[in-house]
Amino acid sequence: MVNNEMYALGSKRSVIRELFEYGKIRAKQLGADKVFDFSIGNPSVPAPNCVNETITALVQNMDSTLLHGYTSAQGDENVRRAIAENLNKRYSTSFAANNIYMTCGAAAGLAISIRALCCDGDEFVILAPYFPEYNVFIKAAGGTPVTVGFDESFQIDFDALRGAITKRTKAVIVNSPNNPSGVVYSKETIEKLAKLLSERAAEYAHPIYIIADEPYRELVYDDVEVSFIPSYHADTLVCYSFSKTLSLPGERIGYIAVNPQASDAENVYFAVMGAGRALGYICAPALFQRVVAECIEARPNTLAYKENRDLLFDGLKNIGFECVHPNGAFYLFVKALEQSAEAFSDKAKAFGLLLVPGEDFAASGWVRVAYCVSKDMILRAMPYFKQLYDSYTNQ
Amino acid sequence: MVNNEMYALGSKRSVIRELFEYGKIRAKQLGADKVFDFSIGNPSVPAPNCVNETITALVQNMDSTLLHGYTSAQGDENVRRAIAENLNKRYSTSFAANNIYMTCGAAAGLAISIRALCCDGDEFVILAPYFPEYNVFIKAAGGTPVTVGFDESFQIDFDALRGAITKRTKAVIVNSPNNPSGVVYSKETIEKLAKLLSERAAEYAHPIYIIADEPYRELVYDDVEVSFIPSYHADTLVCYSFSKTLSLPGERIGYIAVNPQASDAENVYFAVMGAGRALGYICAPALFQRVVAECIEARPNTLAYKENRDLLFDGLKNIGFECVHPNGAFYLFVKALEQSAEAFSDKAKAFGLLLVPGEDFAASGWVRVAYCVSKDMILRAMPYFKQLYDSYTNQ
Repeated sequence: MVNNEMYALGSKRSVIRELFEYGKIRAKQLGADKVFDFSIGNPSVPAPNCVNETITALVQNMDSTLLHGYTSAQGDENVRRAIAENLNKRYSTSFAANNIYMTCGAAAGLAISIRALCCDGDEFVILAPYFPEYNVFIKAAGGTPVTVGFDESFQIDFDALRGAITKRTKAVIVNSPNNPSGVVYSKETIEKLAKLLSERAAEYAHPIYIIADEPYRELVYDDVEVSFIPSYHADTLVCYSFSKTLSLPGERIGYIAVNPQASDAENVYFAVMGAGRALGYICAPALFQRVVAECIEARPNTLAYKENRDLLFDGLKNIGFECVHPNGAFYLFVKALEQSAEAFSDKAKAFGLLLVPGEDFAASGWVRVAYCVSKDMILRAMPYFKQLYDSYTNQ
Repeated sequence: MVNNEMYALGSKRSVIRELFEYGKIRAKQLGADKVFDFSIGNPSVPAPNCVNETITALVQNMDSTLLHGYTSAQGDENVRRAIAENLNKRYSTSFAANNIYMTCGAAAGLAISIRALCCDGDEFVILAPYFPEYNVFIKAAGGTPVTVGFDESFQIDFDALRGAITKRTKAVIVNSPNNPSGVVYSKETIEKLAKLLSERAAEYAHPIYIIADEPYRELVYDDVEVSFIPSYHADTLVCYSFSKTLSLPGERIGYIAVNPQASDAENVYFAVMGAGRALGYICAPALFQRVVAECIEARPNTLAYKENRDLLFDGLKNIGFECVHPNGAFYLFVKALEQSAEAFSDKAKAFGLLLVPGEDFAASGWVRVAYCVSKDMILRAMPYFKQLYDSYTNQ
């Protein structure tokens, strides 16, 4: 009597959530020190001081009915202006407050953007390896996901992409720095992508959008540059989240930025507002709208993530694992020691190691290790990684 | 190139939001003292002290990564348990933490519940006068809204309801205390509704749900009792919000309670979780989950609303307006002085009075006056209501 697809989504859960919940149960059973949960992208670094200071100041000084009251559906105008100005300062763009729509995080931004754009028969290209919920959002909007693989450097497989784009393609979803691989797309990759989409858009006589999923934009190491996609491709919607930048994943705060240079920017923005309504969003959380505007230049201690990356990457390489070197986000992609990453992940569980199998990321044969954890946990986990490795090689 | 329905929803906006935005622009143009905005249900009473005290204490004492981190998708377990226990204490029910799903307010709860239940060809009965977004959520889920009118006391028109329920009826949405009329459904109304739905469910051999939209549950005056619908009809989902109870509408925090007595309670709960995923909800805002659990027994100063109600009701009656006497929420329904409530609302704008026309509530000929405003504004608005009235009678 309920909707079968929704039941399936709810009873199955995402693999990541499933491992996360499993980890909490196991920690209760065995003790927290026996479970090494590398499953979820929950920042391990505290929010910058600015966050809690701003919360305290707002609560003390701002009128309660204003502070906690509804904002406009697209978000408080001052907040949207602060975000637009910050983007313009950093990227020499021309965003205005009315190009910004505040959302409950990047997931809401993606669900809303896809719903806003999707017409009957539309296809959305997703670039493996990818965040598995893309499939959920595309199908929920009535669209069809089309998966394109990666090359040996975990950049886009352009031969596959050329074949995947058709006149039904509404958008390509780009996620760089990438979850789950940690790879940052090079400037050359973005330029090549923009060129291909422009050619095809001209051929089919309609825009092909990029939906840029950018929660990890500020989380990069080794001075790697993250190309700002609207500067390369006019028809771009940026879905941003402060979850990782300000270590606020549970507070659900982010935005959609519709590039004012897009060929039909105003219509896209209206459709975004409409999709927000249709999906039950009234406004993004009001207190945290003001917090992110106030803390827009604050950054967490990303040095801790870099240390974790180096420790984990070097440690696993030394044991013998094959790893992708990540320049951003806080994920390390590790090659499974058997064909099925799911079977490998199940085996790892026996050692207390919670690793997300790559099948759901369309990257079978790999597992994702989230290193937004304590340094101590990485150190304590290393012997178990060694045991896991040995259990394969000593067979 | 965007989705036409989403564009229409976003470019049109809800009538309420339209008036709210208009009011902000007019206040800038004419001065805030010349605009009497009775359009939006933004609580005028500050949040109870418990709210800001809890926020401050959490920020000071709780680990930042836990406080602002992801909770489980359905919400923090302790928070859900606190809500279940509070319901059980008040209503002698048997909710458990796993019957509660935390949401970004009641709107998200409704959108999720409808999406969870809606199968191909399903109809949802909505009882006029109603919150206009019901139509949006039902259509977005692929369902068909079926409107049923009200009787002379603004209770359900049961003759119409009997004709409207068919074997395709999936649910009836009930909103008591009612937005926009302020009327509370009597115990007799709820009993009669439950009996009718049980009979039809037996006849059609499938459950007919009640989706109880209850943001105003605690906002009642004159010792009127609000029947707790799960105690009358097993197949009930309650969509609750703390927006009004704790004066937190901008923070987007509420829950869905799936009655454990429902015939397929577990499946419904899974479908709710799935629909939450599909619509882009990751978890409800984490800080405010903990705030509402801590402040679950706190109440705002509803005496102020009662004073406003009496002032407005008596004042408008004395001028000559016909009004529905409201026992709950913070809305007064006033009969328009011409056939079209839209035309009447437009005319009221000329006097600085922002009143929501009833057409969108399926109650043409009436306007909604939200009295969650300052007492002072009501007093200052009275001469303008008089001028509005005179402009009709002195023609």
